[in-house]
Amino acid sequence: MTARHEEIAEELRRAIDREEYAVGALLPAETELAARFGVSRGTVRQAVLALTAEGLIGSRQGARRVVLASRRSQSFAELRSFAQWAAAMGRTATGRVVSSQYRPATDRDTMWLQVEPGAPVLHVLRVRGLDDEPVLLERTVYADWIAPAVEHIEPDCPSVTQRLLDDTGLVFAYGEHLIDAVAAGARDAELLEVRRTSPLLRVRRMTTTRDGRPVEWSDDRYRSDAVGFSVHNSIGSNALARRTGPALDEA
Amino acid sequence: MTARHEEIAEELRRAIDREEYAVGALLPAETELAARFGVSRGTVRQAVLALTAEGLIGSRQGARRVVLASRRSQSFAELRSFAQWAAAMGRTATGRVVSSQYRPATDRDTMWLQVEPGAPVLHVLRVRGLDDEPVLLERTVYADWIAPAVEHIEPDCPSVTQRLLDDTGLVFAYGEHLIDAVAAGARDAELLEVRRTSPLLRVRRMTTTRDGRPVEWSDDRYRSDAVGFSVHNSIGSNALARRTGPALDEA
Repeated sequence: MTARHEEIAEELRRAIDREEYAVGALLPAETELAARFGVSRGTVRQAVLALTAEGLIGSRQGARRVVLASRRSQSFAELRSFAQWAAAMGRTATGRVVSSQYRPATDRDTMWLQVEPGAPVLHVLRVRGLDDEPVLLERTVYADWIAPAVEHIEPDCPSVTQRLLDDTGLVFAYGEHLIDAVAAGARDAELLEVRRTSPLLRVRRMTTTRDGRPVEWSDDRYRSDAVGFSVHNSIGSNALARRTGPALDEA
Repeated sequence: MTARHEEIAEELRRAIDREEYAVGALLPAETELAARFGVSRGTVRQAVLALTAEGLIGSRQGARRVVLASRRSQSFAELRSFAQWAAAMGRTATGRVVSSQYRPATDRDTMWLQVEPGAPVLHVLRVRGLDDEPVLLERTVYADWIAPAVEHIEPDCPSVTQRLLDDTGLVFAYGEHLIDAVAAGARDAELLEVRRTSPLLRVRRMTTTRDGRPVEWSDDRYRSDAVGFSVHNSIGSNALARRTGPALDEA
């Protein structure tokens, strides 16, 4: 059985996650929270101290506490899938395939996708939008074994991830992300409807199945005015790493 | 007592972390690893399967396996400290304070640093370099309670983090990072020695002590040709989150 203060802590975490209490905002005072949950102030305080220890909320300002961070409620599936992410925000994801063609695997494809040199890999260029505004350009290369399943998906399918799960049972399990900034090239600018040389946030990623088999690698470019990334770190857990440029170039 | 295959798994993880086996390279064959560690091939295989399950190495290509990811060996301290990160790579970090001045806390400072409105917070503009090449511009605001300790650090101190630990015992424990891309402004361009409007990788971060007390917030701009960030994610653990622009602007 879960203690009441643990339940309240979890309710508060969820409220922060869904931005009922957004980062930077103040939590209600303990007395108000106690009334809301119908418990004693001591019980609320236990919950609040748990969230403080987790770095989610800060020390007191007067009677209230500021929200410092959310728990990063995004699941890996939500990070992986643009459509699932948009849906979680109550927005509509759009997708449009600009081009899709097989090409023989280059050395880079061979390395990242673990396919034979020259194997047919599928290159797909997709524009993704939020409520019809283009915000992301995906240049994805699919391994030969999954390419036929991708090829048959309709060009305006909003969630390729969901379709691959439905059609083939594929589950993405691990992802490696390299993040930097680039200037929009002519093609980027045209498709994202920004000026050439506008700063874009680039995420190069490689995703594997649960047994480590690479499925795809992708060069994703985001309009920086529309999308960013956040990472919550702590002494105990740090997923973010700085890298020098040359290492990135090799990727 | 740790089983031998677990010890070997840990040695392999460490070798990947220090890039003895870099991401994209092939591990030696199991027979070769067995000879190297002086164990049976079965023992090596157990270690290798552990790393495969963790997503660090891929399935076999002939007799060998490709390295897919490193464990992100960077500790939180190393991520937090530019100097510690540089040292881990065998490079020399430089630092130079361009300006340092007290200003009354704005609403934003009050929110992020949990200081009283109008409290004296310390604004420091620093150029950080790798082997004397400028790669990072830090615009950091320190809370009033830590500002005096920062103020007394010499302008070319390579590691402010280390100095604060030595001088005050301060340990940074939690960090919240917001990542996007921006075009270099005139000042950015001058200090980072790039052209105006060059794409820069921006990381806005807020760091707290173990009890959730904010120490500083910072707008860090990296030369994207020199430094990037990487994140390793999995179904079980996902620290990276996509965010929409407006949420970032509020930050």
